[in-house]
Amino acid sequence: MLRLCDIHAALGGVLHGDGTRAIAGLASLESAGPDRLAFVGQARHAAAIESTQAAALIVPPELVPRASARGPCIETSQPYPYFARLTQWWRARQLAAQRAAADPAEPAIHPSAWVHPSAELAAGVRLGAFVVVEAGAQIGADCEIGAHCVIGARARIGAQARLAAQVVIGHDCTLGARCIVHSGAVIGADGFGFAAHEERWLKIEQLGAVRIGDEVEIGANTCIDRGTLDDTVLEDGVKLDNLIQIGHNVRIGAHTAMAGCVGVAGSAQIGAHCTFGGGAGVLGHLRIVDHVHITAATLVSRSILKPGQYSGAFPIDDNANWEKNAATLRQLYALRQRLKALEKKF
Amino acid sequence: MLRLCDIHAALGGVLHGDGTRAIAGLASLESAGPDRLAFVGQARHAAAIESTQAAALIVPPELVPRASARGPCIETSQPYPYFARLTQWWRARQLAAQRAAADPAEPAIHPSAWVHPSAELAAGVRLGAFVVVEAGAQIGADCEIGAHCVIGARARIGAQARLAAQVVIGHDCTLGARCIVHSGAVIGADGFGFAAHEERWLKIEQLGAVRIGDEVEIGANTCIDRGTLDDTVLEDGVKLDNLIQIGHNVRIGAHTAMAGCVGVAGSAQIGAHCTFGGGAGVLGHLRIVDHVHITAATLVSRSILKPGQYSGAFPIDDNANWEKNAATLRQLYALRQRLKALEKKF
Amino acid sequence: MLRLCDIHAALGGVLHGDGTRAIAGLASLESAGPDRLAFVGQARHAAAIESTQAAALIVPPELVPRASARGPCIETSQPYPYFARLTQWWRARQLAAQRAAADPAEPAIHPSAWVHPSAELAAGVRLGAFVVVEAGAQIGADCEIGAHCVIGARARIGAQARLAAQVVIGHDCTLGARCIVHSGAVIGADGFGFAAHEERWLKIEQLGAVRIGDEVEIGANTCIDRGTLDDTVLEDGVKLDNLIQIGHNVRIGAHTAMAGCVGVAGSAQIGAHCTFGGGAGVLGHLRIVDHVHITAATLVSRSILKPGQYSGAFPIDDNANWEKNAATLRQLYALRQRLKALEKKF
Repeated sequence: MLRLCDIHAALGGVLHGDGTRAIAGLASLESAGPDRLAFVGQARHAAAIESTQAAALIVPPELVPRASARGPCIETSQPYPYFARLTQWWRARQLAAQRAAADPAEPAIHPSAWVHPSAELAAGVRLGAFVVVEAGAQIGADCEIGAHCVIGARARIGAQARLAAQVVIGHDCTLGARCIVHSGAVIGADGFGFAAHEERWLKIEQLGAVRIGDEVEIGANTCIDRGTLDDTVLEDGVKLDNLIQIGHNVRIGAHTAMAGCVGVAGSAQIGAHCTFGGGAGVLGHLRIVDHVHITAATLVSRSILKPGQYSGAFPIDDNANWEKNAATLRQLYALRQRLKALEKKF
Repeated sequence: MLRLCDIHAALGGVLHGDGTRAIAGLASLESAGPDRLAFVGQARHAAAIESTQAAALIVPPELVPRASARGPCIETSQPYPYFARLTQWWRARQLAAQRAAADPAEPAIHPSAWVHPSAELAAGVRLGAFVVVEAGAQIGADCEIGAHCVIGARARIGAQARLAAQVVIGHDCTLGARCIVHSGAVIGADGFGFAAHEERWLKIEQLGAVRIGDEVEIGANTCIDRGTLDDTVLEDGVKLDNLIQIGHNVRIGAHTAMAGCVGVAGSAQIGAHCTFGGGAGVLGHLRIVDHVHITAATLVSRSILKPGQYSGAFPIDDNANWEKNAATLRQLYALRQRLKALEKKF
Repeated sequence: MLRLCDIHAALGGVLHGDGTRAIAGLASLESAGPDRLAFVGQARHAAAIESTQAAALIVPPELVPRASARGPCIETSQPYPYFARLTQWWRARQLAAQRAAADPAEPAIHPSAWVHPSAELAAGVRLGAFVVVEAGAQIGADCEIGAHCVIGARARIGAQARLAAQVVIGHDCTLGARCIVHSGAVIGADGFGFAAHEERWLKIEQLGAVRIGDEVEIGANTCIDRGTLDDTVLEDGVKLDNLIQIGHNVRIGAHTAMAGCVGVAGSAQIGAHCTFGGGAGVLGHLRIVDHVHITAATLVSRSILKPGQYSGAFPIDDNANWEKNAATLRQLYALRQRLKALEKKF
């Protein structure tokens, strides 16, 4: 049985109170049972400290008095990073336990996986059932490739990447080390390129690829299209949530994060350390500098050359009010002209 | 050959006119040929009664005179539920006929499916080609699992569920009885959780799962993320359309329905019997009570504590008008100040 | 080694300068090295002509003097269609070279593919690993079906179609000739149809299919639902980008193109030669005539019966301005009433 002091020994911080308390799992403050470890990141959640049933708490220094009044706690000056490392440590223990319990005869390469003779698998690679690795692909050391993944011809995947089930990596695309890709993500589908000609669309074949840096995470059913001539690029540490569309020739700077359902049109150039709220969009060929933060559901329709926060969502209202205001919005320019005219009168 | 009276015998209602009319299929009023059964749900579609070529009609009581003047009809006081049950009955007949025509030697478990020895399949389970069922998973009686589905370790699926091809159910996730999940849906990918630390993102491993009630339907390529510590929860009877994103730790109350492309950010708590129009969004950590109806393309940016309909889409206009109004919108607060100033003058 | 004159011989245009220049690849003006062929479509990109390192250029007639002053070029009166045909020719050469280099013993039908005995494969069909072709499906001549695709029962695919890995074609759906479908696309999931009954949703089984014309392209993870009774229809030459949702019973006219993340609700009827910007939406049962152009992020909330461009996105602003304007927008109707009152006074 794991004790609080084991966690403290592994992850540090300052232990207050009884370190021998048994910890069966992590939980939120609200749902924690008496054998769980919970986490309070901010003083504004402190009200729940007295009511939680958790065995122990992780708290910032200012909450130690309140937390230790009710039971043991670990103090940390960086509660969110501590919590992140705790979840990582916990998950690694779970996986180790599951692997120890598994049949040692289970092979790392599932017997149903199909690997082209010219593909190269480094040491420690694990392939799930029905994985396909096509000609000339290279998979780095200790990668875990989930069931049903397809690794296209000549694709390269860096060491220690984790691909969940049913990921598609297109031909000639590259992923850096320690990337995580979730199920249904499609890296390297054709960009949407057509030339209009005599009332039809002629396909522009997409001859570039996708090039992804280290420690990038890509969400479920997210799509990153290959470039037309050059590559679509995601730099190191980019984090993309689910159901995101990244068009061809886009470049996303390091450590930029996008929430679900964002769409970025072709050839947009996005800086480093930006954040995008859910459902935001970026039109094609725009440039966004570093440290720009886009609010949810905002359409970026012009380049943004100055760091800061930008917004453009329609405010929600009850339907009756919205109807009146939306109808008036269609006359807004005319209202302004009428206001001007009035102003001129006086 | 099926006759109108067979349908009447199976599904009830009041039969008017010749019950021996042959019915080869169901069709819309507009496209129905002379061997089809069509449906009129509302008086406002009644104009098509005279022009349809359908063999027979299903109509509410008030349309019986018009419908029976042109041919046989079935009267029902609840035309939409009757129509729903009719399509279910029809589909069940189709499937039964297809199964009867299939080679009886075709096994219920496709020989290419890969089932871990520790997984449990109840009686009557059907697995398609290349299905993967991982360690400790449990699949309930009479489930149909389509080709290429991946059922993760320790996942549990209730009886009579129907999974279309290429569904991913993540480890430790649970589905209730009689759920329907469409192709490409991903249940249990990691939630989007990171702690900012020294200009990088530290991954918060997602240790919860997804817990889905009975009779839930989940659309194609829809994603439901696993919780960080606790579970993401969909209660009984929830209906989700395609390409929907449900973030980690979200709870959706019973019988709430969402149209395509909706996004719900993490930890939002949504009540029962709500509806969401296509492309709507909900920000994180909000609370929405029961019986709230959100119009299409509306961003819910604050909690909604009162039942009703809420909206917030920008009204469409021709591009020239929109440009003028949108430009003016960026000065709206200033216009209000100018109006105030004018009002003060008088 | 390929020379510029080989390209000229294959694709036409007027060659200016040294046709023996070696061409190792295509590239953008900015990234082109000295063995690359680049393309200038419009005079506004002409500034880069002097700075590019490209071996040769493709240019419209008005740019020939500038381009030939720096090196060889091919003149064409239709630069975009020429470029499109060039990429097609280049891709075909790449594929031919890859196939020539492949082991001639590699079979066209991957040995792991599972094809129902009643399915029909025409001459020249190639099936990737773990493909599933269900009962009664028909695949036309020279189709390429990528790894892990599922072709449902009785589906029909026209000649020379290209399906990338992990595409699902539902039972009874049809694709025309020369269609391209990208990974994760789901053709023929159930439409979202329910009848409300006693505070629950009764499923309306979707008995129609999806019918797709010739030369249609469908993006990654895009969903096209089957019709309720009749079919959902995409006419010839329709081009859909990634992550698009097409509801049941929709009809899309020939050569209409939609950018990523568009959503079209059920039974909408969309004309030919329309374009939709990314993230646009169309409500159900609306009609849009031919030659309508919808700007990105615009919700079409009423039928559009006149060709033209239509818009409705909220303008982006810095967050502080947006907050003030959005708050005022919720009083817009009241402001109009106040303006009216003032006007009456004078």
